[in-house]
This record gives sequence, C-alpha cells and structure tokens, in this order.
Amino acid sequence: MVTSFATANAQLVEGKRGSEDFKIGVAGYTYRNYDIDQTLAFLKSMEVKYLSVKDFWLPLNSTKEQMDAFKAKCAEYGVNPYILGPIYMKSEAEVDRAFAYAERYGSDVFIGVPNYELTDYIIKKVKETGIKVAIHTHGPDGAPFPNIQKVAEVYKDPSLGIGCCMDLGHSVRMGEDIVKDIKKYKEWIYDIHIKDESEASKKGGTWEMGRGVIDFVPVLKVLRQIKYQGVVSLEFEKNWRNPHPGVAESIGYMRGVADATK
Amino acid sequence: MVTSFATANAQLVEGKRGSEDFKIGVAGYTYRNYDIDQTLAFLKSMEVKYLSVKDFWLPLNSTKEQMDAFKAKCAEYGVNPYILGPIYMKSEAEVDRAFAYAERYGSDVFIGVPNYELTDYIIKKVKETGIKVAIHTHGPDGAPFPNIQKVAEVYKDPSLGIGCCMDLGHSVRMGEDIVKDIKKYKEWIYDIHIKDESEASKKGGTWEMGRGVIDFVPVLKVLRQIKYQGVVSLEFEKNWRNPHPGVAESIGYMRGVADATK
Repeated sequence: MVTSFATANAQLVEGKRGSEDFKIGVAGYTYRNYDIDQTLAFLKSMEVKYLSVKDFWLPLNSTKEQMDAFKAKCAEYGVNPYILGPIYMKSEAEVDRAFAYAERYGSDVFIGVPNYELTDYIIKKVKETGIKVAIHTHGPDGAPFPNIQKVAEVYKDPSLGIGCCMDLGHSVRMGEDIVKDIKKYKEWIYDIHIKDESEASKKGGTWEMGRGVIDFVPVLKVLRQIKYQGVVSLEFEKNWRNPHPGVAESIGYMRGVADATK
Repeated sequence: MVTSFATANAQLVEGKRGSEDFKIGVAGYTYRNYDIDQTLAFLKSMEVKYLSVKDFWLPLNSTKEQMDAFKAKCAEYGVNPYILGPIYMKSEAEVDRAFAYAERYGSDVFIGVPNYELTDYIIKKVKETGIKVAIHTHGPDGAPFPNIQKVAEVYKDPSLGIGCCMDLGHSVRMGEDIVKDIKKYKEWIYDIHIKDESEASKKGGTWEMGRGVIDFVPVLKVLRQIKYQGVVSLEFEKNWRNPHPGVAESIGYMRGVADATK
C-alpha cells in the first residue's frame, strides 16, 4: 500500500482507507490451475494478504516440516495462509484426519464439509481438540450444508465451536437474502467466501464482482454493521484456466465498494 | 451486464447501477503492447464499451475505408472507438494532418497535444472545421500543457472549442487538487484520463486504482456533481508488457466506487 504524504489536497488518501476495515483474501480453489508459487505471485501483485489453503498445495498427510516450509514460502510473498480447507469429511476416519491436519498446522479452526451423520462426532472432536469447524455452505448443488440456516438447524448452539464459512454466492443461488442472513446468523460466521453470480438461481455461476446480480454495497455495509472481524475471501470459480484478470477485477471492485462505504 | 429478476432480496441489483452513471473506457496507450484484436478482446472481457484510439492501431494516413473497417471490428466486440488521440502537433502541417484525420473519421473532437506557438492556428482550424480539440494534460513531464489551468490560460475562452482531455493522474503528480479543478474548469473538460499514482510528485508513476495515493471517492462524487457526460478512460501506463490484470483491477475499483456513491 502506497502511503501518501500529508497534504491539503482533497483527493489524496489520508489515514485509513475504507477497504482496510476488511481482511480481503482469496480462497485457494480460485487458482486450482496454478502451483503455490504462481498463486502467491498473483496475490502479491494485487497486495492481497490472506489465502485460504486448499489441499492440492498442502496435502492432508503433510508433515509439520512440510507445513513450516509452506508457511515460510507464503511469508516471503507477504501472504498469511490463514485457514485450511474446505476439507470434505465422509467418515469418522476422515474427520480424524482433518482435525490432525489442522492440529499439525497449528490452527484453531478449519473449513470443513462434514456429512450430517457425523454431527455428534464433529461436536466431540471440537470439544476434545479446541479446534473449531467452519462449515462451507454450498448452495443448491447437493453438498450436505446448502446454507447457514442448515448449519444452525443441525448444530443448534453456536457456542459449540461449529460455525460457517458462509459462501455468499452459493447462498444467493439458493434464493437467500444474505444481508438479512449475515445479521441474523452473525455469531455463526467464522469465514466468508465472496463472489458475484450470473443468476440468483441454481443455474447461476461465479461472475466478476460488480457485473453479476449481487449488489455488494448493502453486503459490505452489513458486514461493517456486525463488526465482522474475519477474512472475506474471493472464491472465483469462473475461467479456471485463466482466472486472474477476473480475480483482479473482483478484488478491485470489493476495495472500491469498501473505500466508498467507509 | 447480467440482468437480475425482480425480487425482495436486499442484496440483488435492482434498476440502474451507480457505475452506469459513468461511461467507463480505456485509453489506447494502455494496450500499446497489443494489436487491436487482442485489445478489443480484453475490453469485451471486462464489458468496457469505450476505447480512445491511438494511431499505432489506426495510422494518421488511414483511408476512410480503413477507418470503416476499424470501426466495424470494434463494433463486433461491442466497443465504441469514441475518440482519436492523443495526437502530437508540432507544426501547422501536423495540425492539418490531425484535423483531416479526425474529419475522415467523422469525429467532432479529437485529443491533441499542440505546441504553444500553434495556438492561433488551432483556433482557426477549429472555427473552419467545427472539430474541437481536447488537449491532453501531461503533468510535470515537459509536454506543452501540464494541466487544465494552462489550457484555460492559453486559450482563455472555453466557447472556442478547445478544451481538455484532463489527465487526473498527471495533475496529481503536478500537486493539483483535481477535485477543485474539476469543479472550477468543468466547461473545459471534454474527456478524462484516469489512473492512480504511486506518488503525488513528478516521481510518481501509474498505479492500480485504489492502491495509490489518490482517493477516487471525492473524484467520482465531484464528477457526479458537475454532471460530467463524457467518458472516463483508464490510461494505465504501468506494466506495459502485461497491463491487463492491473487494468481489470482498476476498472473493477472504479465500478465499485461508482456503485457505492450512487
């Protein structure tokens, strides 16, 4: 971030930008066509400082040494690999593996996609390990948890340490009102995946922010209102072979809305 | 632009976006490393509909037929090649050539950079042809007109048909207060080049919008206030070999600020 000198000129940035009220990140799935080095170079070129880490870069059986090397590489690019996942969990063995992975990484939370029948086991593991689970909500596509309502319905008590990585795009594809949901379920929101959508229906796909159907002005305003302290990570699923221009456009858009809603 | 269906959901785009109050374009110099086909593909991928045309794509001696073919190609990509230039004019012969070029193109205005000593000749040509000149302001780098003040000082009467393609970045590099200038000199502004800068000094260079020293929130607000009807074209001079990600980020940023300042 370029720092301005003190001046009386009306149009020079003074003090904190509105966008600095948000931790803006990228969800790893966005750059699934790239290795971690190229991905980090992309993030650095946009001054994006948070990355949600997918296991195609850091496999679930990674050793602590491999994890340390991975973190050191991220640090070279000024990027905080702040969370692991989403990790799918279809059996108790897979739950165990996911928690062990997060524990080796030194995390107190990871993004998970557990099957419903593992609910009691997940609650037990969170109690045992102190590691929380942010359940990724996947809209109308058939993954266990379509929206934040379902997480709240199944887990009931937000103090258990099971919450959401709320996917705003997928929620809109479900026909949800995400502005109301963010306010209503704020204590369940541990992490956020953000993206625009081509349609507010199952047929919708990721779109560049500012050019789809979602008005992000009230979305960012409600995140300010609830004083959301987590990361807002762009999960750009469009153009997987060459997503970067659309990512850059979306990150720019998010910063523009954030600066102007200060 | 994706169109949303009618809904009660707070976060879906309804009616006109704030960014639709601006004609957002790109200045040709941005893509000087690319041919017109690739440039138009870049614009289309961002839904940018205005292009300021440099002569490396359409030489000053182009025939009317070549110009028609050029326009037809732009139309295929949904792009309006709305203005020619900047065209440097260091002699009366170069002035004649520039006006003839604009006349063949069917323009009533072009972006020019005339030497001071050509002032009377420029005024005469504008009177004769009805074609106006938007003088590109180039800040502290030594081009004849550093800022809009200088254009007003030299040409005195804005009704003559000589105004500015005001370059906001270069003006900031001159230490100008562009918010005040836009308001004060609004009748002189025919076209705008927009970009962020790394520093508000001669040493400054183009930067991605939202990450440099310029706060574009008051800038877009004052453009709304004066009801500016022209195009705002991004002239991104950074990373000339691979400018597109920075362009996309900047276009996104501009749209974000525009949407949030509706």
